[in-house]
Amino acid sequence: MSAPLLSLSRRIRRTPFSGRVMASGVKAYTVYNHMLLPSVFESPEEDYRHLKTDVQVWDVACERQVEVRGPDAARLLQMLTPRDLSKMAMDQCYYTPMVDETGGMLNDPLTLKLAEDRFWVSIADSDLLFWIKGLVYGLRLEVDVDEPDVSPLAVQGPKADDLMARVFGDTVRDIRFFRYATLPFEGHDLVVARSGYSKQGGFEIYVDQWDLGEPLWDALFAAGEDLNVRAGGPNLIERIEGGLLSYGNDMTRENTPHECGLGKFCQTQTAIGCVGRDALLRVAVEGPVRQIRSLAIDGEALGPCGDLWSVYANGKRVGRVTSAAWSPDFETNVAIGMIRMTHWDDGTKVEVETPDGMRTATVRESFFI
Amino acid sequence: MSAPLLSLSRRIRRTPFSGRVMASGVKAYTVYNHMLLPSVFESPEEDYRHLKTDVQVWDVACERQVEVRGPDAARLLQMLTPRDLSKMAMDQCYYTPMVDETGGMLNDPLTLKLAEDRFWVSIADSDLLFWIKGLVYGLRLEVDVDEPDVSPLAVQGPKADDLMARVFGDTVRDIRFFRYATLPFEGHDLVVARSGYSKQGGFEIYVDQWDLGEPLWDALFAAGEDLNVRAGGPNLIERIEGGLLSYGNDMTRENTPHECGLGKFCQTQTAIGCVGRDALLRVAVEGPVRQIRSLAIDGEALGPCGDLWSVYANGKRVGRVTSAAWSPDFETNVAIGMIRMTHWDDGTKVEVETPDGMRTATVRESFFI
Repeated sequence: MSAPLLSLSRRIRRTPFSGRVMASGVKAYTVYNHMLLPSVFESPEEDYRHLKTDVQVWDVACERQVEVRGPDAARLLQMLTPRDLSKMAMDQCYYTPMVDETGGMLNDPLTLKLAEDRFWVSIADSDLLFWIKGLVYGLRLEVDVDEPDVSPLAVQGPKADDLMARVFGDTVRDIRFFRYATLPFEGHDLVVARSGYSKQGGFEIYVDQWDLGEPLWDALFAAGEDLNVRAGGPNLIERIEGGLLSYGNDMTRENTPHECGLGKFCQTQTAIGCVGRDALLRVAVEGPVRQIRSLAIDGEALGPCGDLWSVYANGKRVGRVTSAAWSPDFETNVAIGMIRMTHWDDGTKVEVETPDGMRTATVRESFFI
Repeated sequence: MSAPLLSLSRRIRRTPFSGRVMASGVKAYTVYNHMLLPSVFESPEEDYRHLKTDVQVWDVACERQVEVRGPDAARLLQMLTPRDLSKMAMDQCYYTPMVDETGGMLNDPLTLKLAEDRFWVSIADSDLLFWIKGLVYGLRLEVDVDEPDVSPLAVQGPKADDLMARVFGDTVRDIRFFRYATLPFEGHDLVVARSGYSKQGGFEIYVDQWDLGEPLWDALFAAGEDLNVRAGGPNLIERIEGGLLSYGNDMTRENTPHECGLGKFCQTQTAIGCVGRDALLRVAVEGPVRQIRSLAIDGEALGPCGDLWSVYANGKRVGRVTSAAWSPDFETNVAIGMIRMTHWDDGTKVEVETPDGMRTATVRESFFI
């Protein structure tokens, strides 16, 4: 199925950067948190190549923030995730699986600690605000919860440090991975984190005032002309190679963090107060019976995975593929899927039922890096 | 801005009808509840003309259901809405504004009462499930809440009764507006309601088993050939003419039901238990200071409203337009907007700032019917 047209309306929100994105020749979008997320500029392959060699500016305003503020903020945050937040420092970003009372994934945001009683939760594609508001009301917690006017702009690629240093000064080079600094732009302090949805390195700038969007975009492009800066977006090929999971694609409410290979982000024993703690302690006893794995699917280039592709071994269903793309660098179809324990060992041969017919494939323990 | 391409992925879910929709030549989609919603087949104008004269089958599987079941189900439902549910009968569908504790709209679903302790909430575009799950956890209510395998298929248009009678029997003609009956299709009982997101009359069939989707679609098309049945979807022009509001477009969490002109669905005084009751009782004292109105915008055909268009009078901002389209039948641009009390009287002349420049417009108290 080739890409159809997307009907636009206010319900699919524009971002502070939308005008610039259109002027940059965006070809395709996806919709994420009720907002436009640019997905293709030249082509998935050309965007991929450029991301791996130069530097791109991404409109990821759709990573909406849930701001939690007040005396119960820290307690509430710990209720949301099995990751132990007790030692989180003030300049840290934590990748935080968020689960319901059964341990099912509701979102996999980055959480930023802005103050002891103030956090931003930078969300993936689900209305996590609604879950949090429900808990707050039901438990009468003393916090204020809302979606503030904050729109992340990402700068990704091997030349990201150089570009960012030209706009924010050399101090950006000192920001450690998943840490942030507050840096001035046009007299306004912005949170700048070393993070982003690629494996090429880079930053996310939390633009907390709509009108700063275009000046910041323009400053990055003016400073980066000789670095060959271009507009880009999360790249399907690159993120599958690198094993960056996508909520809604590779994991849903059906899955525990352990199934998603996110057990290392769960300190369930000490995450006291987490609403999913009872269920996840139980999961931790035996471990999951299926887990996310990388796969290499043989044969010609496959289209994107618009639906689940069943994975078989000896005629029995042993898993499903949730994301796939042709990798020019690895010269194979790279994929992410959920595979049963019986077949998840590195090197296991399986078959995948694709829209182009049955294909042989190999299960891998590591991603393509 | 013309329609861009939509990148497909599993995160933007297919429906049981997606194969048939593609075979019918769908040209554009929107994304609704993380799911594909077909929006254009021939063109918005041709689809509109056909909807008003014949009969269409709509894939509205994206109207996902939240199923609430258990001893506290009725109590929970009343917590969600200022509409008094105490007299709701077992075969009724209620249009139910759903609000948070400040009276802000979270969704505007249809609620179906399936049993004294079992409801379906047929939602608009927000993860209402998350709000409900949060409340249930926080208040330790005795209910089970989930998204079941239910995908509505709508049959809309003046010939809808004739088509439906051929597939489900003449008993469908007796179903009253916003009531439902349980009728067999291929030996399986389906909920069939007289409802739908058009003013042309018709039904919504709640397909509660994925595999029934294609047989039902095929049966409707086989039975309706001489009725000129076609695939369609919610039509922007027709819904604006008729004043069918769209959550995310015409109303958001910022708005109370009263601002949305939904006061008639609020019996806040007797809706005891509604979490927004305190706030809405306060609103009811004075009424809202802005409210949704229909507008006729002069001049040539305008494109869809991808963003808010400011409304001015004497140089002062008095509102904003949230949806707009050229109406072939009324030979004007029909629109929906939120207008301040000072300028909401029928016939008030205003100016609208459109992407095509400033246009004169007239505020109307009634929609275009």
